[in-house]
Amino acid sequence: MSIIITGASGYVGQELAAALLTTLPDATVTLTDVIRPEVPSSAAQHASRTTCIEADLTSPDVVAELFTSTHRFDTVYLLHGIMSSGSEANFELGMRVNLDATRSILDRLRSVMTGVKVVFTSSLAVYGPAPTGFTITETNFPPVPSSSYGSQKLIVETLLNDYSRRGFLDGRAVRLPTVTVRAGKPTQAASSFASDIIREPFMGNKAVLPVSQDTEMWICSPKMVVRNLVRAREIPKEAFGESRSVNLPGLKVSIREMLQALEEIGGPERRVLVEERYDPDVDRIVQTWTPDFDPARALGLGFEGDVSMRENIREYAKRFE
Amino acid sequence: MSIIITGASGYVGQELAAALLTTLPDATVTLTDVIRPEVPSSAAQHASRTTCIEADLTSPDVVAELFTSTHRFDTVYLLHGIMSSGSEANFELGMRVNLDATRSILDRLRSVMTGVKVVFTSSLAVYGPAPTGFTITETNFPPVPSSSYGSQKLIVETLLNDYSRRGFLDGRAVRLPTVTVRAGKPTQAASSFASDIIREPFMGNKAVLPVSQDTEMWICSPKMVVRNLVRAREIPKEAFGESRSVNLPGLKVSIREMLQALEEIGGPERRVLVEERYDPDVDRIVQTWTPDFDPARALGLGFEGDVSMRENIREYAKRFE
Repeated sequence: MSIIITGASGYVGQELAAALLTTLPDATVTLTDVIRPEVPSSAAQHASRTTCIEADLTSPDVVAELFTSTHRFDTVYLLHGIMSSGSEANFELGMRVNLDATRSILDRLRSVMTGVKVVFTSSLAVYGPAPTGFTITETNFPPVPSSSYGSQKLIVETLLNDYSRRGFLDGRAVRLPTVTVRAGKPTQAASSFASDIIREPFMGNKAVLPVSQDTEMWICSPKMVVRNLVRAREIPKEAFGESRSVNLPGLKVSIREMLQALEEIGGPERRVLVEERYDPDVDRIVQTWTPDFDPARALGLGFEGDVSMRENIREYAKRFE
Repeated sequence: MSIIITGASGYVGQELAAALLTTLPDATVTLTDVIRPEVPSSAAQHASRTTCIEADLTSPDVVAELFTSTHRFDTVYLLHGIMSSGSEANFELGMRVNLDATRSILDRLRSVMTGVKVVFTSSLAVYGPAPTGFTITETNFPPVPSSSYGSQKLIVETLLNDYSRRGFLDGRAVRLPTVTVRAGKPTQAASSFASDIIREPFMGNKAVLPVSQDTEMWICSPKMVVRNLVRAREIPKEAFGESRSVNLPGLKVSIREMLQALEEIGGPERRVLVEERYDPDVDRIVQTWTPDFDPARALGLGFEGDVSMRENIREYAKRFE
């Protein structure tokens, strides 16, 4: 079985690659990114089943070379993208990478690999602000994105649904909550701070909190996101019904609760490294994200619910033991 | 004041041009279509204020020539498109005309006419099937299109919202109900029969009804659609809130009621010209359209509610008196 991941140099891409290599002993995994990806260190023993390719997917020629009729992938994981703040700051770049490159891949796939399974990481940023206290499901609230990032994600979802309905592809769009605690570096996601305020103190660095402690977020641990991405390819396509889009399970937490968990597990010496410095640009985006979701559809499809914030941080802290 | 209409050879385009020329005595109106549009006969006296241009909008060069920084339009009406059955039958053509050409216009406009008012005729086909008896509003039910046509409309809406949010353009997407009674010829819309079964008998021709008489539809008279398209450019942009998309008012009628109104106004000799001949392909599309909408948002914005089916047919019948 052969699987490919785009955006595989990113944090989620690396974790997903490691999980696939570990759980599927017969699988070969191709990793691509605009910078040549590494074999994840936690899966170094599977390097012989891993191919790492530098590929700028905004080039149709590169896409045509990557996906050919002579090598059929079992699943194509589309994880590449410019993140939320990045897409807001550079509109053209976001459109080119998040929309045009993705569409050109979908079109190439339907021509050389008709019906292939495609797992796309969408985002709950497809939703604009909901009324206070309103709990969103896939069927009770229309996505009206408040960012170019969310718009681009929603457009790809719409394409993926239509391509799946027509039998061109077998798409699965999983809408990720804010993933925290992300290892690695701060990102161009507006939500980057939600990982920074835990990760950086554990690294001995200061971190900036740009929003109020009262802010509530719908978050998900990396472990569970990866597990659910693996799951996404296992669900029979018939189970999805009218729409291939699913809101992934997560957890509602306030920043205050996150900082309490940090202090509890990392100690007050780490807690003091978080400095509150309000950033209206980040806050404007974050306030449009609702923290209230009912993940019944995802759970019904076989996706898994998340662990607690404390368990999440404890898992992250393991690497420093 | 200068206004342009794309798809201006179509039935709604011609009616809209006539309405604009008649109600705005100072306006010049540019009509474009892939076939050179005519000045609407009902507005022949305004021919001097009308420019008719043959333009294939799938060509970026043609788009660049049509929209330049030296001539600013007050409003750009985007009515061109491949209709629902046509887009389902020829996927590539639908994508090229309904999505790519429209996006290239939006991009051209934001570069040479930043902030220009754009009125886009979307469609209630952005919605897939709703639960029986469920009444759709803009905020209680997510659009998940069941056709490529609906998908392409939804994608343009998403672009228009993001472009408006960013101040690139001032977009207004009006989602049209099934427009009936359309004069002219049968179209490539899956809903074409809803006009055919009234228009053709009045012309002395047979018409085919491809769905059951029990089928209920959310329809709108041409007169009211045109009046609401005129209205769309008059509404202050601030009134739209988070979304530039509006479900236009209409009327819920069954095919049986339409045929009764035909018989009442046109006589039994016209009624017998409608032949029931079930077409599963058309029916499959039509059954995904819900007939239940609450147009409160549209009415609140200043759009107008529709006339009765009898009044609608009476209006159509006038041309034969």
